[in-house]
Amino acid sequence: MRVFIAGVDGYLGWALAQYLVALGHEVAGCDLFLRRTWVEEIGSQSATPIRSMEERLAAFKENFDQELIFKKGDLKDYDFVLQCFRFFQPDAIVHLGEMPSAPYSMIDVHHCSFTQTNNIVGTLNILYAMKVACPEAHLVKLGTMGEYGTPNIDIPEGFFTIEYRGRTDTLPFPRQAGSWYHQTKVHDSHNIMFARRIWGLRSTDLMQGVVFGTRIDEMGGDDRLLTRFDFDQCFGTVLNRYCAQAVIGHPLSPFGVGQQKRGFLPLRDSMQCLAIAIDNPPKEGEYRVFNQFEEVYSVTELAQKVKRVGDELGLNVNISNIENPRKEMEEHYYNPDHHHLLALGYKPTHDVEQELRIMLKDLSKYKNRIEEKKEALIPDIRWDGTRRKARFLAEVI
Amino acid sequence: MRVFIAGVDGYLGWALAQYLVALGHEVAGCDLFLRRTWVEEIGSQSATPIRSMEERLAAFKENFDQELIFKKGDLKDYDFVLQCFRFFQPDAIVHLGEMPSAPYSMIDVHHCSFTQTNNIVGTLNILYAMKVACPEAHLVKLGTMGEYGTPNIDIPEGFFTIEYRGRTDTLPFPRQAGSWYHQTKVHDSHNIMFARRIWGLRSTDLMQGVVFGTRIDEMGGDDRLLTRFDFDQCFGTVLNRYCAQAVIGHPLSPFGVGQQKRGFLPLRDSMQCLAIAIDNPPKEGEYRVFNQFEEVYSVTELAQKVKRVGDELGLNVNISNIENPRKEMEEHYYNPDHHHLLALGYKPTHDVEQELRIMLKDLSKYKNRIEEKKEALIPDIRWDGTRRKARFLAEVI
Repeated sequence: MRVFIAGVDGYLGWALAQYLVALGHEVAGCDLFLRRTWVEEIGSQSATPIRSMEERLAAFKENFDQELIFKKGDLKDYDFVLQCFRFFQPDAIVHLGEMPSAPYSMIDVHHCSFTQTNNIVGTLNILYAMKVACPEAHLVKLGTMGEYGTPNIDIPEGFFTIEYRGRTDTLPFPRQAGSWYHQTKVHDSHNIMFARRIWGLRSTDLMQGVVFGTRIDEMGGDDRLLTRFDFDQCFGTVLNRYCAQAVIGHPLSPFGVGQQKRGFLPLRDSMQCLAIAIDNPPKEGEYRVFNQFEEVYSVTELAQKVKRVGDELGLNVNISNIENPRKEMEEHYYNPDHHHLLALGYKPTHDVEQELRIMLKDLSKYKNRIEEKKEALIPDIRWDGTRRKARFLAEVI
Repeated sequence: MRVFIAGVDGYLGWALAQYLVALGHEVAGCDLFLRRTWVEEIGSQSATPIRSMEERLAAFKENFDQELIFKKGDLKDYDFVLQCFRFFQPDAIVHLGEMPSAPYSMIDVHHCSFTQTNNIVGTLNILYAMKVACPEAHLVKLGTMGEYGTPNIDIPEGFFTIEYRGRTDTLPFPRQAGSWYHQTKVHDSHNIMFARRIWGLRSTDLMQGVVFGTRIDEMGGDDRLLTRFDFDQCFGTVLNRYCAQAVIGHPLSPFGVGQQKRGFLPLRDSMQCLAIAIDNPPKEGEYRVFNQFEEVYSVTELAQKVKRVGDELGLNVNISNIENPRKEMEEHYYNPDHHHLLALGYKPTHDVEQELRIMLKDLSKYKNRIEEKKEALIPDIRWDGTRRKARFLAEVI
């Protein structure tokens, strides 16, 4: 299949290009390298020393014996998006090209507006360009489990059938997202549902859990194929931050009480799920939602796993909760469905500790790069709009 | 109370400034006059010959013996919004400053992106500026009944309590809006709910039905105080379009089968409801939703009412359905609640036919101005993305 990846220079995008080519797909992609700029802006860097796109493309060709067709450009530029689709004629479009950080979106009004405009207009341009250039193509859109928030009832996959005052309907599940960034994914979901309704576009909206991991097997031993690994307060996901903290001897820092539950999955599972969505397109005019995660964990359970594996590797890991910079429930009910991908053949990795072992070993090579930017690990962007470094809630143990 | 109206040059905004000052409020407002530009862009004009803001402000002062404080500026410019709020220190902010047309948003990708960016960023700037300049103020935000779409169950006011798989929660009612414009109101509602959650801002989200009418009593006999009256395919609401059609001897044109049901209210009721919301602010940190309409009618029932009143006035009115340019259900269940405003004292006008009499008499004075732009009455902007004039489905009777 011909797969176009919007955001192919990112954490997921760069890995996915390799994963899909190894499966026999033909891959093209675009990027504006904004992720590189944002991480620099907030004073951090990828733990893995990622290469320029030129070097990446050369390494890609050497390793996979196939070109990755790449165009630099902005998804906010409709003509650029349209040209990409007209030129490549994709069967599937994987949309990973959004600003993906909750704290970054919460910095101030300008970061908030940028995030909402960037993500919404990019998605609208993709929908319009699909309609014109490839209306049969399948949009695989990265949403987030964070769209749902933490309701006090089970979370279905996108839609639920309910009875209300004696009548019944199947409706989109209500969204209660927890940051300006997460709100953009809600807005996107609504816009994509509407594009299906008026134009019959087919799409899969992936409500992805929190991803962790440094690598997939396809990267082999070539460091030029490594994907980025962010550990800062904005772009580092929680388990990735824990691993970076463990490697530099910093205590792991769950936010607040630390009983926030989320769905998690390793990078390799994310790749598997994306490929399953691509290989099993919805029928014409279908909009479907997959909740994409391996298992639900609390952020404290995960900290304990990192401690266990880290200690085993001689890292002597501590855990110390810090003030929560976010406004969120720290203890709550959480029971989201995740049947659809399993039904299509998703085989979860399950062995989180083995994955953590790989991560800690990978990251120990880049310990110095994490040390250099360790200030970026402790959050100071607060949901109340102020900036102040979170304090540890107990003596560091 | 000190009330700031964003979009004070518009159909509702200009009427509201008069209505509130007559009630004893102090009023300021801003506008960028985009509505005037958009209506010109699509080849139409207001049936009422509205005046420049300079003339409007002079007439306002003469009639109400009070200045309307006015600033020209763009809600997308955060510094402008912040300065307005810092300078005026409003107790309430009425946000009417959005692009309000479904068909205009459906013209093409550029109008779609403009609509979403304009409406979302304007609202975000208002929220941030409130937080900084007047966190105690009350945001009265114009949403639309169109946010809900037409579900097969009753529509509550914003939230509903449901049981699902044996557990219970109170959640936002799912949104299924029917145009890119209506989607922006959904996005705004989500963003405003989130601003309440993180900053405790108080707000009223008004899910307004379709407004009709040429005047409110406060306009008296001074033509300079008249508000705009649009009858074109983009900015004319359905009942206003019917009245314009009746006045120029054009058949009234329900879309498709014509059994679409909506909540409707006269302009004077809209003013009454807005004033009630302002006079009864929510408590600190409360986000509340009012469904704001007088009664539910089908678009065919309303055409019949216009025919009855028009015939009585000697206009000889015909009705002829036309092809529906939209993708929408033309026959459906529709039972939205509207208790909250009634509980606060809203006294609905109820006498739609009397209102229609006033409208038809008012509009007959401006018959020539409607004739001049009658091409703008028949829709050609289609939800499938094409442009083609809708055809009459039957011989014009």
